[in-house]
Amino acid sequence: MYNLLKGKKGLIFGALNEQSIAWKVAQKAYEEGAEIVLTNTPVSIRMGNIDQLAEECKTIVIPADATKVSDLENLIDKTMEHFGGKFDFILHSIGMSPNVRKGRTYDDLDYDFLAKTLDISAISFHKVIQVARKKDALNEWGSIVALSYIAAQRTMYGYNDMADAKALLESIARSFGYIYGREKHIRINTVSQSPTQTTAGSGVLGLNDLMDFSDRTSPLGNANADDCANYVITLFSDLTRKVTMQNLFHDGGFSSMGMSRRAMKLYEKGLEIEYRDIQNKAKKK
Amino acid sequence: MYNLLKGKKGLIFGALNEQSIAWKVAQKAYEEGAEIVLTNTPVSIRMGNIDQLAEECKTIVIPADATKVSDLENLIDKTMEHFGGKFDFILHSIGMSPNVRKGRTYDDLDYDFLAKTLDISAISFHKVIQVARKKDALNEWGSIVALSYIAAQRTMYGYNDMADAKALLESIARSFGYIYGREKHIRINTVSQSPTQTTAGSGVLGLNDLMDFSDRTSPLGNANADDCANYVITLFSDLTRKVTMQNLFHDGGFSSMGMSRRAMKLYEKGLEIEYRDIQNKAKKK
Amino acid sequence: MYNLLKGKKGLIFGALNEQSIAWKVAQKAYEEGAEIVLTNTPVSIRMGNIDQLAEECKTIVIPADATKVSDLENLIDKTMEHFGGKFDFILHSIGMSPNVRKGRTYDDLDYDFLAKTLDISAISFHKVIQVARKKDALNEWGSIVALSYIAAQRTMYGYNDMADAKALLESIARSFGYIYGREKHIRINTVSQSPTQTTAGSGVLGLNDLMDFSDRTSPLGNANADDCANYVITLFSDLTRKVTMQNLFHDGGFSSMGMSRRAMKLYEKGLEIEYRDIQNKAKKK
Amino acid sequence: MYNLLKGKKGLIFGALNEQSIAWKVAQKAYEEGAEIVLTNTPVSIRMGNIDQLAEECKTIVIPADATKVSDLENLIDKTMEHFGGKFDFILHSIGMSPNVRKGRTYDDLDYDFLAKTLDISAISFHKVIQVARKKDALNEWGSIVALSYIAAQRTMYGYNDMADAKALLESIARSFGYIYGREKHIRINTVSQSPTQTTAGSGVLGLNDLMDFSDRTSPLGNANADDCANYVITLFSDLTRKVTMQNLFHDGGFSSMGMSRRAMKLYEKGLEIEYRDIQNKAKKK
Repeated sequence: MYNLLKGKKGLIFGALNEQSIAWKVAQKAYEEGAEIVLTNTPVSIRMGNIDQLAEECKTIVIPADATKVSDLENLIDKTMEHFGGKFDFILHSIGMSPNVRKGRTYDDLDYDFLAKTLDISAISFHKVIQVARKKDALNEWGSIVALSYIAAQRTMYGYNDMADAKALLESIARSFGYIYGREKHIRINTVSQSPTQTTAGSGVLGLNDLMDFSDRTSPLGNANADDCANYVITLFSDLTRKVTMQNLFHDGGFSSMGMSRRAMKLYEKGLEIEYRDIQNKAKKK
Repeated sequence: MYNLLKGKKGLIFGALNEQSIAWKVAQKAYEEGAEIVLTNTPVSIRMGNIDQLAEECKTIVIPADATKVSDLENLIDKTMEHFGGKFDFILHSIGMSPNVRKGRTYDDLDYDFLAKTLDISAISFHKVIQVARKKDALNEWGSIVALSYIAAQRTMYGYNDMADAKALLESIARSFGYIYGREKHIRINTVSQSPTQTTAGSGVLGLNDLMDFSDRTSPLGNANADDCANYVITLFSDLTRKVTMQNLFHDGGFSSMGMSRRAMKLYEKGLEIEYRDIQNKAKKK
Repeated sequence: MYNLLKGKKGLIFGALNEQSIAWKVAQKAYEEGAEIVLTNTPVSIRMGNIDQLAEECKTIVIPADATKVSDLENLIDKTMEHFGGKFDFILHSIGMSPNVRKGRTYDDLDYDFLAKTLDISAISFHKVIQVARKKDALNEWGSIVALSYIAAQRTMYGYNDMADAKALLESIARSFGYIYGREKHIRINTVSQSPTQTTAGSGVLGLNDLMDFSDRTSPLGNANADDCANYVITLFSDLTRKVTMQNLFHDGGFSSMGMSRRAMKLYEKGLEIEYRDIQNKAKKK
Repeated sequence: MYNLLKGKKGLIFGALNEQSIAWKVAQKAYEEGAEIVLTNTPVSIRMGNIDQLAEECKTIVIPADATKVSDLENLIDKTMEHFGGKFDFILHSIGMSPNVRKGRTYDDLDYDFLAKTLDISAISFHKVIQVARKKDALNEWGSIVALSYIAAQRTMYGYNDMADAKALLESIARSFGYIYGREKHIRINTVSQSPTQTTAGSGVLGLNDLMDFSDRTSPLGNANADDCANYVITLFSDLTRKVTMQNLFHDGGFSSMGMSRRAMKLYEKGLEIEYRDIQNKAKKK
């Protein structure tokens, strides 16, 4: 604890339960001296135990569906009311794909579902910022962060239309980062996080094996939710004021790796089996 | 003329008039020995003069709104009927932002308009490919190209939500490129083209000045519609079979430039005026 | 054969034997109507059978060490003499790391070797271009290509200091692409090719297994030397005149992949063995 | 002051005078609770006033030429001696191009000078890390940072062979980041900083005008040396442990901008003059 966020106030979207990255960010922000307000959809509030977090962080939970502008307007009003004025940072940790949930593969997308994926996982980020800006809710040199994933750049088997949503999310960070930066010196960045064992992540096909591959490929191993919270805290602090419009990889090095020795060794074990199977088949003929 | 596309057949979206990149691609593809089918929305067909192009290329025009799956199903059926079977390439040259048209700035987006921008300019690309794939419309080693712009990576003043649409478009090329590649060896790429004086481009704020800046920054100058058509032809040919999931900059070098001497000289003239104005103001006080 | 390079003349570095990418490029360029001149180091000329290629392409071989400016000056003079004037394209396919050859790992580099790696594999590219430009050897709208590898962006186990050399090579393409482009409209690009079974590639540790991983990850599979030659021909042609300062991935999609189902299946086989081994070890205790 | 680096020890290369980024980093690191050791070449020690900084930070200066392995060995030994054991972070802020100094343009490089540019500005980074690693000088989860510039990705008029040196530097960060990360959890990153008014930067042609362009293009304006020091401190802290092999843009958003309204307005003033001049010339004829 360094009091890195002393005197700062922030709004945190997306804390469901103790596994959530947003949960950890809320805890760390509070530890580092910030006052926070929590928000999530009514459904998520019922499903998880965010009230426990609110108690821990001595704050309130304001329900809001981040795809609804009217909900966001109410949220920002209530948040400013709670803080007695403007605040300093926002975390957007929201993502969901009905196509993934319903098992629609990428070559058989339902387009209403796709519109929902994009609305929930990316456009909601624009809505949050646009509403905050219209209400002039953020102090100068404030900081906005959304969580992303490397599928925005490189296709990951099974990640489906969430990849496109993340690409859109990162683009919104750039586009709005320009506007909000030149006017109010607000910075907007995305953190591209290692695959993380959260409730949100658990819908993705084969996530465990992918996490193993990612972990063995990354020289420092996968970053977990605690690591991520630490990193996000630096982005909310005054020490990173000139970083904006960036997609920041927080992934133990995965994004700059092609192939590691450790992952290759495992792959080679798979190759051995594969060759043996092919030989056995050939013998039987 | 090299007969680069001899024996190939393709479907071309988005030719409005002689300025259109799609128009030039159609002409070149025809010159290079391809058979083509043209398509555009009913409105665009009335507004432009695509029938003249169809005559020139000895082909038909099939109206279709690329945001409607039923239109696309009909289009693909009719195209296959016309060709007497599968075909080899598709050009997607479609983009439009109601927010830009109605003068809604990026910090005041209308979200219904945004949904339309994304649907017309990006999701239509997914729809075209999904329908083509479901109908097994393309021959193995076929090639699909969509036109993009560098605003997908770097914020350009005035480009508004089209930047986000292009980022989404490029992501769809990657995501579907994986699926369609592994199954049918179809490649999918986007061409990130210099700003181009077309009817579609004319809505963008300050495009002329931006084109000047882009031209003076690019060592080879801006690429025009003819240049672009030439390049797209290579991507439809058999010589580029292993290029896929790429965003290919076709821009005279702009994307790899920070600042050129030529653009800087002009900027410095502006600086002189600025300093003079500041001095004059100071004197008056 | 399309006569894509009819009337064009070019200089090709790096053809050793029939496996070489440069060899294939020479053949294709000749087939497509170009006149070519071949060059390589005296050692490589003795080791390989470039004379056979020269005969096939009805041309000469001019020995030159591309790290020596005086050799390059002689080479350019002789080439212009042979062609009776200026020429149109250059292929640079040169790379070698004494550190790799001598088994010096990246954390135990010999710095004289590193200087050689960089000089041979990257700086030679600058020397070739600088000499060509000083002698005004290339026609307007000429094209220069060097071969690169994705290790320039993402660390590949075992690729060692060649990764750094490739990063430098790609930077030289950009830096000189600006200068030579603005003056003479010469374009300069690098092609980032799939791992390829050539004599040059054979020194890299574990290349076979890496090629398997790369092949299973890429939706179109690895690009081979023939594919690469086809692609390079398009870059020498007049159809790609506005493409410059780019690093162009020619790799079946590998560069835009995070993880494919096909590669993951093999990896999962390795995982099964790993888990079984761990369980067996646990039982023995 | 947050005590972010309490208990940490680090070695800082490249502090010349109060303008130096390394100078600011040293001050901030000290303020944040770190113990530091300073180093620079004997010439730079004489030219600048590093002793004053040493006094301020209650530490010593150990002279070393970072291109000489023996100097670095002595430096690391002495540093460990001073600290009584291993340390935690290293800052590499070293860059110089004899070609720039002697006015050799990029199409007329002296190759001995180029070798020096690369050795001083990039390979020295490898040498520092290799020596530190061989002597096992760094604690687990240590952090190494080098300063870079966007010319590594995008050609900036006048930046000459320093662009290539920065590309090489960033590649070394990735290559060694993998090795040192998997073994000792040491992270290695580069910070790509806005153009900064330092003694080192002052050799670059037209830097003032470029800084103006950069400043008007960046929504947050250029980052200065103080901002940079703050950011580097976060990278040395325990809050960024899983960030490695990255090139981190610290530039007020410049790297994600294509064109801002503010810069464009100035450019348009230049255009007006240009058009007026062209018209005046036409009239005179």
